[in-house]
Amino acid sequence: MAKKFSELRQQMSPEAQARAEVQAQAMLAEMPLNELRQARGLSQKMLADVLRVQQPSIAKMERRTDMYLSTLRSHIEAMGGQLEIVARFPDGAVKINNFADLSGKAVA
Amino acid sequence: MAKKFSELRQQMSPEAQARAEVQAQAMLAEMPLNELRQARGLSQKMLADVLRVQQPSIAKMERRTDMYLSTLRSHIEAMGGQLEIVARFPDGAVKINNFADLSGKAVA
Repeated sequence: MAKKFSELRQQMSPEAQARAEVQAQAMLAEMPLNELRQARGLSQKMLADVLRVQQPSIAKMERRTDMYLSTLRSHIEAMGGQLEIVARFPDGAVKINNFADLSGKAVA
Repeated sequence: MAKKFSELRQQMSPEAQARAEVQAQAMLAEMPLNELRQARGLSQKMLADVLRVQQPSIAKMERRTDMYLSTLRSHIEAMGGQLEIVARFPDGAVKINNFADLSGKAVA
């Protein structure tokens, strides 16, 4: 039987609770995929080469507002990153790991 | 023209950089969707009612390893949370906001 969120938090050390608190408040940089690609110093052509698709596919992908998690994961891994799926609640955040199986195909 | 990642970081205050560092190191609780639902004190039936689907749809959804971002977002919002998509790199993390448009249909 699963435990309640509050019980899970109580099991954390005070240091871990403090870190979680800071983390909840910290502001991450926020940007769309095309800006992230540019911030990583990559062109659409470079990313297309890594993913073995044509450049227009990257352009199209960067304009999408919905896609499969696996597609997004490949795209982010091609930039050298890791996709994280987080569910944020007023009392804490949880990383969802249903989709971790898909992370095998890392691209250098 | 987009700025480089390192330049973006330099623009952050020392406090913000320290927070980002702590955040990068902090361990979030990690679990699959069904455990998250239980940790929120929700049954499949309750979630099905919020999403106006049948209970077996929830069971099926919780076993999936890939899905559309919009589907996952609805599911997490039905639990009272917010979906965050994060790309984590060795030198920092970025929240992807291509998909923010979809967050309009919050479920109480």
